[in-house]
Amino acid sequence: MPAPTDRLTRFSVPPLAQSTRRLADVAAGRAAADLVICGARVLSTYTDRILPERELWIAGGRVAAVKPNGAHKALADAPGEVYDANGGILAPGLVDPHIHIESSMVTACAYAEAALLNGTTTIFCDSHEIGNVMDVAGVEAMLEDARQAPLSIFLTVPSTVPATSPQLETAGGDLTAEKIGALFDRWPEAVALGEKMDFVQVAQGDARSHAILAAALSRGRPVSGHIYGREFVAAYAASGVTDTHEAIDRDIADDLLDAGVWIFLRGGPPTTPWHSLPEAIKTITELGASNKRVCVCTDDRDADDLMLFGMDWVTRQAWKAGMTREQAWAMGSLHPATRFHQDGEIGALGGGRRADVVLLNDALEVRNTWFGGTLVVEDAKVTPVLDAALSDRWVYPKAAYATVKIAGDPPLVPAPPRTPCVANTLRTALPGIVVLHERVALKSGETWDEIIRESGEDLCFVAVIERHGLSGGGESRVAHGLLKDFGLKSGAVASSVGHDSHNVIVAGTNEADMRVALDTLREAQGGVCVVDGGAVKAFVALPIAGLLSDKRVTEVAEETRVLKEVWAQAGCTIPYMGFNLIPLSVIPEIRITDKGLVLVPQMTIVEPFEDARAAAE
Amino acid sequence: MPAPTDRLTRFSVPPLAQSTRRLADVAAGRAAADLVICGARVLSTYTDRILPERELWIAGGRVAAVKPNGAHKALADAPGEVYDANGGILAPGLVDPHIHIESSMVTACAYAEAALLNGTTTIFCDSHEIGNVMDVAGVEAMLEDARQAPLSIFLTVPSTVPATSPQLETAGGDLTAEKIGALFDRWPEAVALGEKMDFVQVAQGDARSHAILAAALSRGRPVSGHIYGREFVAAYAASGVTDTHEAIDRDIADDLLDAGVWIFLRGGPPTTPWHSLPEAIKTITELGASNKRVCVCTDDRDADDLMLFGMDWVTRQAWKAGMTREQAWAMGSLHPATRFHQDGEIGALGGGRRADVVLLNDALEVRNTWFGGTLVVEDAKVTPVLDAALSDRWVYPKAAYATVKIAGDPPLVPAPPRTPCVANTLRTALPGIVVLHERVALKSGETWDEIIRESGEDLCFVAVIERHGLSGGGESRVAHGLLKDFGLKSGAVASSVGHDSHNVIVAGTNEADMRVALDTLREAQGGVCVVDGGAVKAFVALPIAGLLSDKRVTEVAEETRVLKEVWAQAGCTIPYMGFNLIPLSVIPEIRITDKGLVLVPQMTIVEPFEDARAAAE
Repeated sequence: MPAPTDRLTRFSVPPLAQSTRRLADVAAGRAAADLVICGARVLSTYTDRILPERELWIAGGRVAAVKPNGAHKALADAPGEVYDANGGILAPGLVDPHIHIESSMVTACAYAEAALLNGTTTIFCDSHEIGNVMDVAGVEAMLEDARQAPLSIFLTVPSTVPATSPQLETAGGDLTAEKIGALFDRWPEAVALGEKMDFVQVAQGDARSHAILAAALSRGRPVSGHIYGREFVAAYAASGVTDTHEAIDRDIADDLLDAGVWIFLRGGPPTTPWHSLPEAIKTITELGASNKRVCVCTDDRDADDLMLFGMDWVTRQAWKAGMTREQAWAMGSLHPATRFHQDGEIGALGGGRRADVVLLNDALEVRNTWFGGTLVVEDAKVTPVLDAALSDRWVYPKAAYATVKIAGDPPLVPAPPRTPCVANTLRTALPGIVVLHERVALKSGETWDEIIRESGEDLCFVAVIERHGLSGGGESRVAHGLLKDFGLKSGAVASSVGHDSHNVIVAGTNEADMRVALDTLREAQGGVCVVDGGAVKAFVALPIAGLLSDKRVTEVAEETRVLKEVWAQAGCTIPYMGFNLIPLSVIPEIRITDKGLVLVPQMTIVEPFEDARAAAE
Repeated sequence: MPAPTDRLTRFSVPPLAQSTRRLADVAAGRAAADLVICGARVLSTYTDRILPERELWIAGGRVAAVKPNGAHKALADAPGEVYDANGGILAPGLVDPHIHIESSMVTACAYAEAALLNGTTTIFCDSHEIGNVMDVAGVEAMLEDARQAPLSIFLTVPSTVPATSPQLETAGGDLTAEKIGALFDRWPEAVALGEKMDFVQVAQGDARSHAILAAALSRGRPVSGHIYGREFVAAYAASGVTDTHEAIDRDIADDLLDAGVWIFLRGGPPTTPWHSLPEAIKTITELGASNKRVCVCTDDRDADDLMLFGMDWVTRQAWKAGMTREQAWAMGSLHPATRFHQDGEIGALGGGRRADVVLLNDALEVRNTWFGGTLVVEDAKVTPVLDAALSDRWVYPKAAYATVKIAGDPPLVPAPPRTPCVANTLRTALPGIVVLHERVALKSGETWDEIIRESGEDLCFVAVIERHGLSGGGESRVAHGLLKDFGLKSGAVASSVGHDSHNVIVAGTNEADMRVALDTLREAQGGVCVVDGGAVKAFVALPIAGLLSDKRVTEVAEETRVLKEVWAQAGCTIPYMGFNLIPLSVIPEIRITDKGLVLVPQMTIVEPFEDARAAAE
């Protein structure tokens, strides 16, 4: 662990082992508290009750005691500061048990701002994306970033990098069991194995998958999961996986709980499939399961949505879905802390715990946040002390700024077919997760314009360019395909966030705009952009690993908001986050990677254009 | 960890990290289970429900899956064995979060028998007593004993040895923070710090006490507690203590829960103060606290009571007091496992967990117990495989058999007072925990017979003889006093179990019988006996550290039953366990140690006889 510095980080609060005498002195009234927050109700996540007429005594960044309101006035020494909660509810800071910082396209230091505004003081992040780009070096860079952030950030070590195999795609990372074991040994904040996404392989007893499980289990670290399909639950649980955030309905949630798997109910923008909480929570509200092994989480949020649908919002959704306010808040704080064995330190306002505290109104909206006893959010605004911390963000190493390694100028559009053919197209559809495999008959023609017009379909080009510098030769590998129903009216869109290998994906109606889009990303070493008529119309630069901006979250949120607006104006039928998933070769039905078109159920590569006569046979 | 052997121990089940592939194969139906227990209902401690029509698949000593009843019949390969539960309830083995093995006067290997008969498959023991006699060597001997037992035994490292100070008593152990830290580093099964009994010193910020807390907390080990008095709760919790089994009523239980302290509701023989469960549970049943941070435990049981009032009995008391059956069983299994962060391994029948399973009838009575998949109790009787394991108990080292080191023949009765005086007597009273300080005027006389007769009171002699070989000189240190209302009609009683320093305590009506009693204990190197007319009337030999028998628990239970009968016949008004507490210098009001009479509130030593005139001034 790093030595404490002046920087506001989780290490600003000395370890409990060094603090017990002072805390006992304060709790017993022999020494003055640093801070007393009076005039409050206190939400006890231990007993799921709101305790009336209380005050909170804080010393050395930790909770010394919860006392009857006004108790501090009877002491000889006045506390360092008294803060009046004006009858509001004091509750523990939220603990998000499963998130990917990279989804927000900001660094850990920047993510902290949004988290604290949402009342979240601890997160368990899976730095899966940067691991896919930079291997161990990326994971460790983000761990260092996390240590320097004004937020408590723990890691669940990425477990499934690459997502598939070198036959199907080129990734920048290959996290073996040995590398994962070494990460656990070097980083005490690596408290668990991250979501083991290859649940089919796990259930089938695959050797590499189980060696990775063993790297965690043999070190006493729990394993997080990711699973769909009731038929896989038994074998997955038997493999030692003990949580999942992918329970999409009541019945699988029920199966998982009884099999010994903690459920993280995922909330998200209500129009998306990420918002599975209302269905999955029915294991409690309809089937009578105890909520004691149930948490809430966010999983993925872009910077813009993070401000609107944070952990506080998710927690309120649990309340809305039938939990009491107190139960809901516990599912967002004490329960996740307990799941990761951190309940001696966070998740509640018990004696000795970190003074990670929020002040709520009766609607459970966050007014103030104290991080380790420091007021960082007041009246839903960042305080000067947090503002200063956020202006001094940790800087990633140079190597992280040089990860879009594209050689030459690979062609972005395939040659027009010389004979009639059948195209294996990727049909996009809302909500943008599944990509459908649609075979479209094409006539031959001189130009693509002519061929596409003749087809009568909404088709545009898509290309994935290998960007890890692993293609060999003078030109990076590229694969071509056609998107159907993508809706792009003209120009091009591109992204260096192409799950999970994060090669560059470009789609467009013409190669010139696609080239501008690709060059924009090469120049900036990453980003997401919209181009039309040779001009960049919107651009979020992501120079760190091609995944992260180095700006503050508020700036990135604004850039993202504009990007989404321009994106929609360009006609794109699925949001940019769905576009980023087009290369993700583990979700049905068809995907495109730098190696070609992947048929997911078969895990094979198919040609984009098949001879029409051969195809008909 | 020791290498697996043929011995039935907790190591007979390979670690989960080595078992996941096989378990996945079995759960998915690709490989046959070793054992299927069919025709069952399954008590899920995760969701607090009883699942109907289930069967349990076991492989490699672990749970592979819970399946619909009859599911195994559809598989190609038949399981190794099928056991019909005949509609009974399968539940996880009980997990006792706080016990002292020494109270049972048997070794860990022998304790296992009673535990398994009670459906208990895991215990968290505090080897506090043997630590007071043999220091680290005693704790480590018991850890080795625990490793060799057919039971999962974890240690909470003794935290308060000696109970007071060398000024007040002579102990055989002095467990400093350094020694405790080294125990944590050497023994992975040392999962927590044991009950920190000096709660007043902890609350006062005492340096030694907090150094010991830091030895645990700095290693990420939680701290168990022991506390009386609502006024101490805040400072005690602020010191990092996160459980207690001493919540004696509703209101202190309520305070403790909200302060972040897990409650272990202690059940015990209903006529004793150990049975605090019915009062403390009212924090849930009357005050509406969630039960999620509440467990049940036994704490202390002699071998005889252990058979009658085990963890299963305590769990049933929680049911009787208002919990549902499912909640009560979870409070005796999953909740303790969660408290000690062992819930990935025990406490429920989730996939991958140890197959520590009990078969219950609808009254929650234990019919069968499987320990790591091995049937050890059937129809409430020990099976041959367990019987064999119990006949091959680990043998303590020679040093453990030579701990009653008494030099010379110290006088056991004081000289009769030559002038009228006031005696500071120890008045015993039921239930036998508190000893009252009563000042009794005595006339002078030639003989004690005459003086006592003249006083008109029920008085007898009591002596505590230092037995750790630490007195120096040719004769062991002895302190004398008078017991009032002890009721002994004639003869003597003696014990080498004299909490917490375990010097030898002898009480009697005459020195000759007291000498026989003492010599009986010296010869056997420990025990508890009743002597009359120069003959031993009852005797439980405790040759290991003067605390433990080396026999099987059934034999010791019978010896204890006889001892209690003879003890009562001799007229003693408090039970022998209360007698053993007479030297315990931390419980009010007055105690006797080898250093003299201790006034507990003042923590000072007082003379047994004061000059009557001086006393009157």
